[in-house]
Formats: sequence, structure tokens, C-alpha cells
Amino acid sequence: MNVHNLKGFRDFLPVESRKRQYMINKIRTAFSSFGFEPLETPALEYEELLMGKYGAEGDKLMYRFTDNGDRRVAMRYDQTVPLSRVVAQYGEKLVMPFKRYQIQQVWRAENTQKGRFREFLQCDCDIVGVDTPLSDAETIVAAGKAVEALGFPNFKILINDRNIFNELATNEQLKIEDSQLPIIIRAIDKLKKIGQEKVIEEMISNGLEKSKAELILKSMQNQQPTMRLKTIFHLLKRMGLKSEQFIFFPTLARGLDYYTGLIFEIEIEGYTAGSVAGGGRYNNLIGMFATRQIPAVGFALGFDRLLDAMEENNLFPTNLQNTKVLISIFNMDSEDNAVATFAKLREENILCELYSDSNAKMEKQLKYADQKNIPFVIIQGPDEIERNVLILKNLQSREQKTLSIDEVIEILK
Amino acid sequence: MNVHNLKGFRDFLPVESRKRQYMINKIRTAFSSFGFEPLETPALEYEELLMGKYGAEGDKLMYRFTDNGDRRVAMRYDQTVPLSRVVAQYGEKLVMPFKRYQIQQVWRAENTQKGRFREFLQCDCDIVGVDTPLSDAETIVAAGKAVEALGFPNFKILINDRNIFNELATNEQLKIEDSQLPIIIRAIDKLKKIGQEKVIEEMISNGLEKSKAELILKSMQNQQPTMRLKTIFHLLKRMGLKSEQFIFFPTLARGLDYYTGLIFEIEIEGYTAGSVAGGGRYNNLIGMFATRQIPAVGFALGFDRLLDAMEENNLFPTNLQNTKVLISIFNMDSEDNAVATFAKLREENILCELYSDSNAKMEKQLKYADQKNIPFVIIQGPDEIERNVLILKNLQSREQKTLSIDEVIEILK
Repeated sequence: MNVHNLKGFRDFLPVESRKRQYMINKIRTAFSSFGFEPLETPALEYEELLMGKYGAEGDKLMYRFTDNGDRRVAMRYDQTVPLSRVVAQYGEKLVMPFKRYQIQQVWRAENTQKGRFREFLQCDCDIVGVDTPLSDAETIVAAGKAVEALGFPNFKILINDRNIFNELATNEQLKIEDSQLPIIIRAIDKLKKIGQEKVIEEMISNGLEKSKAELILKSMQNQQPTMRLKTIFHLLKRMGLKSEQFIFFPTLARGLDYYTGLIFEIEIEGYTAGSVAGGGRYNNLIGMFATRQIPAVGFALGFDRLLDAMEENNLFPTNLQNTKVLISIFNMDSEDNAVATFAKLREENILCELYSDSNAKMEKQLKYADQKNIPFVIIQGPDEIERNVLILKNLQSREQKTLSIDEVIEILK
Repeated sequence: MNVHNLKGFRDFLPVESRKRQYMINKIRTAFSSFGFEPLETPALEYEELLMGKYGAEGDKLMYRFTDNGDRRVAMRYDQTVPLSRVVAQYGEKLVMPFKRYQIQQVWRAENTQKGRFREFLQCDCDIVGVDTPLSDAETIVAAGKAVEALGFPNFKILINDRNIFNELATNEQLKIEDSQLPIIIRAIDKLKKIGQEKVIEEMISNGLEKSKAELILKSMQNQQPTMRLKTIFHLLKRMGLKSEQFIFFPTLARGLDYYTGLIFEIEIEGYTAGSVAGGGRYNNLIGMFATRQIPAVGFALGFDRLLDAMEENNLFPTNLQNTKVLISIFNMDSEDNAVATFAKLREENILCELYSDSNAKMEKQLKYADQKNIPFVIIQGPDEIERNVLILKNLQSREQKTLSIDEVIEILK
């Protein structure tokens, strides 16, 4: 039997799980501080709701099957289609504008050889129901504040407007055909990753003339911000974002076809694996089930990349394990005293753990505390019990002191 | 198209989701305070690992299918089989005794007409690797403290030892055959729910003589605690549990066949829908993939029932929405001032929200604050801007005061 987790799926053992919890708490707090509220949707949806919403690739990568009641169902593939369903289904029950965040797993049958996971956490944050520069700016600031809350002081928000590409399309000098625009956008989107030459190569390989490809790239790089972007930049400053924290980036395209206005990405200084957040305005998506246009703006944090970047930058607190002291048990006869000490420390709200086996050797108990990163151990043998004292051992310095229970409490508090 | 969530699956809109988050945080903190550590396992596992582990009923209710790579997979049905897999797979990497908690969704194709859900949260907490009265007692106390942390002062822990049923089996007067024992246990387990007469009826309908059924029930009710239970009761008292918080309950059976010693359930005074937590010792389960016996003790909280009981007892804080003030926008011209106020309040760490549309009528903005349960609204029209003051409106009393920004900050802090 294959006693193993599935490829592309991960177990998170305590050390990892604690880190994830730490991040999720920080992110929730940051989102909440702007008035975003939590939403949870089921792991399974009717297949017909999801099919075709993510293109042919999405249909292929989706986990979908026939359930016991002969319904065709599919596992959550993203959180935007479920959000659209919720908006259509609950209508008036939702407070509009609907500012919601959603932090749940999604499942995609990705090629794991590319280092991708088949189960991963998405952290989405969106404002549904308004199409204003204010909501655009607030979304950008919320994304920045979430990244900041994780401990990154130096990040840069790259900002663009999808309409810049439409301006490109209507530029009479360039004579771009409608069918060429997606090809151009997809190529330019890779500029940061692959550089100018390769972007031009890609456009050429997709049927554009060399001179035209060069001209397009040059015009893109010289683009000026749209009126809307100018308003957004003004608001960002008023909201307290520093000028070095954001930049107009006319060649930022973002792959997804559904953006209709603002697009942005966040990069962390020194972290080269890619952007850690991305989003924008998408006015034609959320209404898909509601049969009317419902504007929206939002972003997703790249949870795994952020975790990776936090590791690289040592941003996790050294002791996420919060037990301060292990109460060891010297032998069977001292069990009762150990339990009393445990009760006493708990009463004083000192985070303590009681070793669960009075037959275990002291060496094993000390190793346990070391492995769990617990800083102190209390030892109380027959001598100490008779003298009504405790030994408090500091596992870092390996020092130990004989103290009264009150002195121990004072030190640990 | 069926724009709806699947039957038995739930969306949690902000008000509900906040409550769930509140509970999960309390539960995590309670578990952590005993040194239990978080574990997360994937939503999908190899089908062969799960099949047969929950009986024929489990196989039937499990969501399982063939994935895109032609693997037979199954969705998480509980958290005990995944824990067993983790223990077998990671071995030495885990700190033993392994004290872990796990709070994740599980999926079961239940009959929804019985008010059951097909997706629900399980909250498991277990100590793996020791078979000691200490770990039994600690588990019970941890369960009690979690229930207490949610705000229930009056709960009762019903405690029994599965070996009491074995003693019954070897009672020479009763002459119970091995094959009859599971039938008897299953009947007695229902005592609290259906009463004495029906329990006896059930035993009779399963082939026992009436006099024998009566004698069995009577002997059960007169059982004395085992030696192990006596030790556990002593430890519970030493750990600070009050004597009215737990009781020896010789007819408590708990349906599951896998318990090997201690069994317990927690009931909340005045809450009649059933126990809110249950668990016990199960020494023959966790080793299923490790090919050796690995003792374990643990429990699960009934998350949905606890939420239900908290609602009944008004135990949720009145304002889980944490925004203190909505900064409204009087009109387009005052947008800039509203944004400046927003930045200023954020700087002072006051939880505030900026309305995202400067074209919305004031009435709509006030309604928004009301719906989101935000206690204050700041209004600043052209007059106020000229006089450099703000109006602070209390939405509960409907009172409003004209104040300087510093006065507003003082009030909101």
C-alpha cells in the first residue's frame, strides 16, 4: 500500500503549520482593518458553474467528477467564480459595496514537475459593486499594507491601466489588428522576466514584423498614465503610500484577459522568484451569473511565495511555539507534585506543558522540550519535593536554578 | 443554469464567517495552551488508504473518484486516518509524544434530510504515542478548557472506561456471548437519548431474553469505576477540574468500536441537541499503517453544535465587525478631505473604513454603516471643511457632534 500523500499535495507538520497560521492571522488583520469581511464557500460546486470559466486549460486542470447523487461536481478552482455565484445568489442580503476577503484552498491538477502544487491557499481581497478611483486606490493600499504587515518594509507596487493597451490598438501609426492585441499583451507581459529581445522575438514568431514589434515595445515603454491612473496616484499619496512604494509601469500587462482597467503587482526587494501579489479591476466578470454588469476590483496574495520570501528574510518570529515551560516528571512518585505545579502555573496564565508519561527518562523529557523549542523545563525530584522547591532549567544557556514556586512564576511571567 | 450552492454544502457570509473565525481562534488558543500543535493534511488522499477504514457506511458516503492521472483518490472523510498516515510516513520527524490538533473540513455524502451537512469542520485534538492516565486526564481537561474558552461556564464531562463492557462480558452470572457484546454496547449507548425501556426493547429485538436484558442494564448502571478511571479522576482534580464538572457515567458507551479504554463526552447545561465534544483512548488505530501498535487518546469538538449552543446562549461578542468608524464622502469635492481623514485615523491605529464611492448619497452611506454594524460615521461637508471640523455621528444614539480631528481621535481611541 502507498502510505504517502498524493503528489502535488502537502502535509503541513507543526513547524510549517504554525508559520502558515501566523501569516493568515496577519493577513486577516490587515484586510479587516480596511473593512474587508470574510467569506467562505464550499469545496465543491456544480460543475456547470465552473466549466468554461477558466478557458480550455482550466477545464483540463479542474478536479471534477460525478458524485453519489449523479450530480456533476467540481472542486474549487479559484475564488472568483464562487464569489460571482454568491453575488448572484444572495443579492440584497449582501451589503454593497461588498468588500470581502477569502482565504481558502483551491485545487488544480497542475504539472508538478514545474514546482507547482495541486492544492494551495488563495488569499483574495475584492471590492464588488463600485467602479471608482477610490476603490482602485484602496485596493492597492490594502495589498501593500498586507505585505507590510508580514514584515516586508521594502516593496514596490507596479501599476498600469489595461486601457493603455487599447490606446495601443487605436494608435494609427502602429496599425494593430484586433486579433494581434492578445498576442502583443502576452508577449509584453513577459518583459520583466525575459527581457526586450525575447519579447520582440515572441511577437515576431507570432506573425508581427520586426520593425513593428520594436515600435510597439518602444511606444509601450513611452506611454503616459491614463487620467484614471493619475487620479489613483493622487489618492495613493493622500492615503499615505510613499512615492518610492509605487511606480507607473506601462509594460505591466498581467496575463489574464479579464482585467478592464487598473492592473498592479507587488514585488519585494531582493526576492527574485516573482511578484507576491497581483490584481486589478475586472468589471465584466462578477456579473456572469447575475445577468448584469457588476464592477469589481481586487487582488490575490501569493501565499506560498510570501512564505518563501519570509523565510529568506527571516521574518518569522523565532518562537511561534508558545509554551514557555515544560513540567517534567521525575518519577512515578513525583507525578502528583508535577500535576499540582501544572495546575498552579495554568492558574497564573503561564503557558506550560505537562510531560505525559511519568515513566519516561529525564533525558527523553529534556529532548522533547528541545525539539519543541520550549525554553524552560521544571524538574522536581524527591529532594526538591521535600524542600518544597523546584529546579528551573534554561534550555538555551543550560543553566539551572533552585527556586520556590513563586520565584518560578515571577521569572516566567 | 443552477446558480446555487450544492445541497448539504454551505456558504458562510461575513456575519457567519466571523463567528466561525472567533470560535476557531478561541479553540486554537485553548489547544495550544496545553502544547498541542497544529497539523494540516491534504483534501485528497489515495483512495486505498481510506477505503474500509470507516466501515461499509463510510465507503458509501465517501467522495471518491478517478483523477486526471488515473489515480483513485478520496476526499478527507475524517482526520484520524490522515493522522495515522502522517505518523507512519514521517516517523522520527515527529516529536513523540505527538500532541497535535487539526481543524479542517471533511466531506461526507450524508443524507441531508437528517439535517446533516456534506461539508463540515472537524476539530480534533490528540496525544499519540503514550498510554498513561496522565495523557487521558490531560485530554479531558483540554476538551473542558476549550468548551470553557468559548464561554460556557456550566458543562459536564461524562466519563467511562470501555473496559467496563469487557468486565460485563466476563461476568459469569450474565453469560454474554462475544457476538452479543457489540449489540449490547450499541443499545446502552442510546440510554440518554431513548431511555431504559427502549434500550431493553432494542436488546430484546436483537435476540436477548428480557430478563437478561434487564439484568445487563442494571449491572451496567451499578458498575464501579475501573482502577484506571480512579487514577484519572484523581488527576482531574489535581489539574483543577471542579468535582461538579465531571462525573463517572457507566452507561456511556460511544458508538465507535475503536475505543480501547477511556471514553468521554461533554454536555452543556441547557443545550439538549446532544453532546458538544467526545473522545477517548484508541490504542489500535494510529498504528494501522505503521505495522505496530501506537497508543493514542483524543477528542473532537462538535463545531456546528457548539456554534448553535453559543447562539442560544448569546455567547458571541456583539461586535465581531471591528471597524469603529466609517468615513463618509459628502460629495466629489470633499473626497480629498475624506481621504486625508482616513490616512490620519489609520496613522493613529483607529480601525476605520473609507466609503468607496464619492457619488453615493449620504443616506446610502449611513445605511451601509448600519448594515455593517459600524458604530460611528464621520461626515465632512463644505461647511465643515471650511471650519476645519468634522461631524461625528453615533449610529446607535443617532446623536452627532461637531469636533476637531483631535477630539474625534480621542473619542475613538
